[in-house]
Amino acid sequence: MKASVLSICPEVRIIDITHQVEKFNVGMGSFLLACAAPNFPAGTVHVAVVDPGVGSERRPILVEGRRSFFVGPDNGLLIPAARSDGILHVYELTNRALMSPRVSATFHGRDIFAPVAAHVACGTAPKDCGRQISDYVKAAFSEPTIETGRVIAEVIHVDSFGNIVTNLKREHIKNVAFGERIALSVGHHKISARYIGSYSDLRGRELGFLVGSHGYVEIACREGNAAKRVGARSGVGVRVVGV
Amino acid sequence: MKASVLSICPEVRIIDITHQVEKFNVGMGSFLLACAAPNFPAGTVHVAVVDPGVGSERRPILVEGRRSFFVGPDNGLLIPAARSDGILHVYELTNRALMSPRVSATFHGRDIFAPVAAHVACGTAPKDCGRQISDYVKAAFSEPTIETGRVIAEVIHVDSFGNIVTNLKREHIKNVAFGERIALSVGHHKISARYIGSYSDLRGRELGFLVGSHGYVEIACREGNAAKRVGARSGVGVRVVGV
Amino acid sequence: MKASVLSICPEVRIIDITHQVEKFNVGMGSFLLACAAPNFPAGTVHVAVVDPGVGSERRPILVEGRRSFFVGPDNGLLIPAARSDGILHVYELTNRALMSPRVSATFHGRDIFAPVAAHVACGTAPKDCGRQISDYVKAAFSEPTIETGRVIAEVIHVDSFGNIVTNLKREHIKNVAFGERIALSVGHHKISARYIGSYSDLRGRELGFLVGSHGYVEIACREGNAAKRVGARSGVGVRVVGV
Repeated sequence: MKASVLSICPEVRIIDITHQVEKFNVGMGSFLLACAAPNFPAGTVHVAVVDPGVGSERRPILVEGRRSFFVGPDNGLLIPAARSDGILHVYELTNRALMSPRVSATFHGRDIFAPVAAHVACGTAPKDCGRQISDYVKAAFSEPTIETGRVIAEVIHVDSFGNIVTNLKREHIKNVAFGERIALSVGHHKISARYIGSYSDLRGRELGFLVGSHGYVEIACREGNAAKRVGARSGVGVRVVGV
Repeated sequence: MKASVLSICPEVRIIDITHQVEKFNVGMGSFLLACAAPNFPAGTVHVAVVDPGVGSERRPILVEGRRSFFVGPDNGLLIPAARSDGILHVYELTNRALMSPRVSATFHGRDIFAPVAAHVACGTAPKDCGRQISDYVKAAFSEPTIETGRVIAEVIHVDSFGNIVTNLKREHIKNVAFGERIALSVGHHKISARYIGSYSDLRGRELGFLVGSHGYVEIACREGNAAKRVGARSGVGVRVVGV
Repeated sequence: MKASVLSICPEVRIIDITHQVEKFNVGMGSFLLACAAPNFPAGTVHVAVVDPGVGSERRPILVEGRRSFFVGPDNGLLIPAARSDGILHVYELTNRALMSPRVSATFHGRDIFAPVAAHVACGTAPKDCGRQISDYVKAAFSEPTIETGRVIAEVIHVDSFGNIVTNLKREHIKNVAFGERIALSVGHHKISARYIGSYSDLRGRELGFLVGSHGYVEIACREGNAAKRVGARSGVGVRVVGV
């Protein structure tokens, strides 16, 4: 993919965000992209490929945001990051002149996404990449549901330390004071966790939660793996009562 | 290695292809290099190090190809990629002035390959790197053998999805129609697989084969790991009857 | 972190040394940094983050060396590399104008270390980054102790091949001749190993030791994993008698 980019736009800077998204885990990919993208300079073209549907009818798309561009499959992967940026237009990639002369059925990263991204980085206008669409796949992970006295959320990511990242944001716990202990359930597992400012506030194998550097609430254990302890993985439900 | 390159040629662009070749697996390294190299711009210098013989008598070499240069150990690693490019000359690296002042016995990547590659990237002529040779190690993986009514091939790579890549190319299956089912044996395992265009053509745990994005025939299973299922790994024999 | 760097200093070259340091293993991180740093051009700014104390009172620092700069946590991580370079001054990072507008409690890499490193790379003087200190944490791994007739050392790293890297240097084995066999203990394990020039001098599962490409003595086994064989890991004691 990088070779494809450099063949078209030799001056572009290429930065790897990660190559460690689990196979086919679109939610994990979209979360990591949403964490990283806001830190990049305006005008950055983000290319992301977690693409179980490659070779099928799923469309390749370009999202034009307020500050940035996003290129990848139409499966929700790009949307959380693009939404934070502010979505202006979404295009289905149809302009074959911007792609590899021969498009394989199995490696659209090399043959479609990377070449189109390189052209956009070198100045091609988004509207010249294809036709505008509005029926793109909207979400890779859901928003929490707020009911009387409780919030229904879910795990969107487990990081390599075993921290459990949920789709809760600071606003969902605004009534909880620092240091306060609350009851949560993660799947069928009931836990009690303390609101902390950073991992170093935890003692031993105590469980705590904090607003992570990405803006989402995560559950952590300093001297242990929180996710293994409560059996958490992407998609598992999280309930918070009395917040 | 990158530090060595930048110390000599600060303007060069450095791209990582992979750091995940299995220890000592020269065949896997040569396959991945052969997949990636054709996508790079003309004039690229490829450096590859899978080098069980470091510190022994195995020679360090530079291959001058039609479009690209290849630097690494003389153990076959560079040859499949260089052959696709078109081999013009092969040089044993003997010019000490292009290497680190002190060459260690265990890290030729840093002390020989990277510095020589940086000099070539900055304009040093290949013939100034050493003496021309013709007795270099020729192959890292073999070509299929065609017999009456069958083809004897082998597994050259198993990718991280469990797809089984063979040394068969499109020409070896030119008589098979899309959608047709054929019988293969992988090691002692007899399988039946359908000729598909992309992974998304497969249903459930069905086995299929396709010409991969690298140009080689691979055996795949969409909702499973084909290699685990049939016990395939590099070097295992593959037989196709009646093609 | 790279996005933070590029937002401040778009022209800087970014090179990854490694992302595979074990969680919280400051000694392993400091060893790998010390191996890599001397190969980089003068003026390089090294950023390293192995940071169990993030969010606590541990200070962020900048080390100004003779050739290079080092930015990271004050936990010993930077010191072996900086000491080889020659430490001129150490600064606690206190200038908030060089950091992210909002500093998170859990990701100082992105919010403090990367931005400060980018400013230094673009010309900010070290003394403008904070206040000079001398009570920084001094060591991430220890020096060997030399007693009459023996040396007490320790394992500082086990590499991915299973080679056991110790804190012994060439000077500690200067009385041993190439090819000579000596007795060592690694933890409770007594072994006999031959002084070799490179891995390829070993036969089968024989154990040997050599001065590695990083300048430290390492114990190796060609067709096996030396560390697994003797149960070695970072911090385990190594004794050499009669050298």
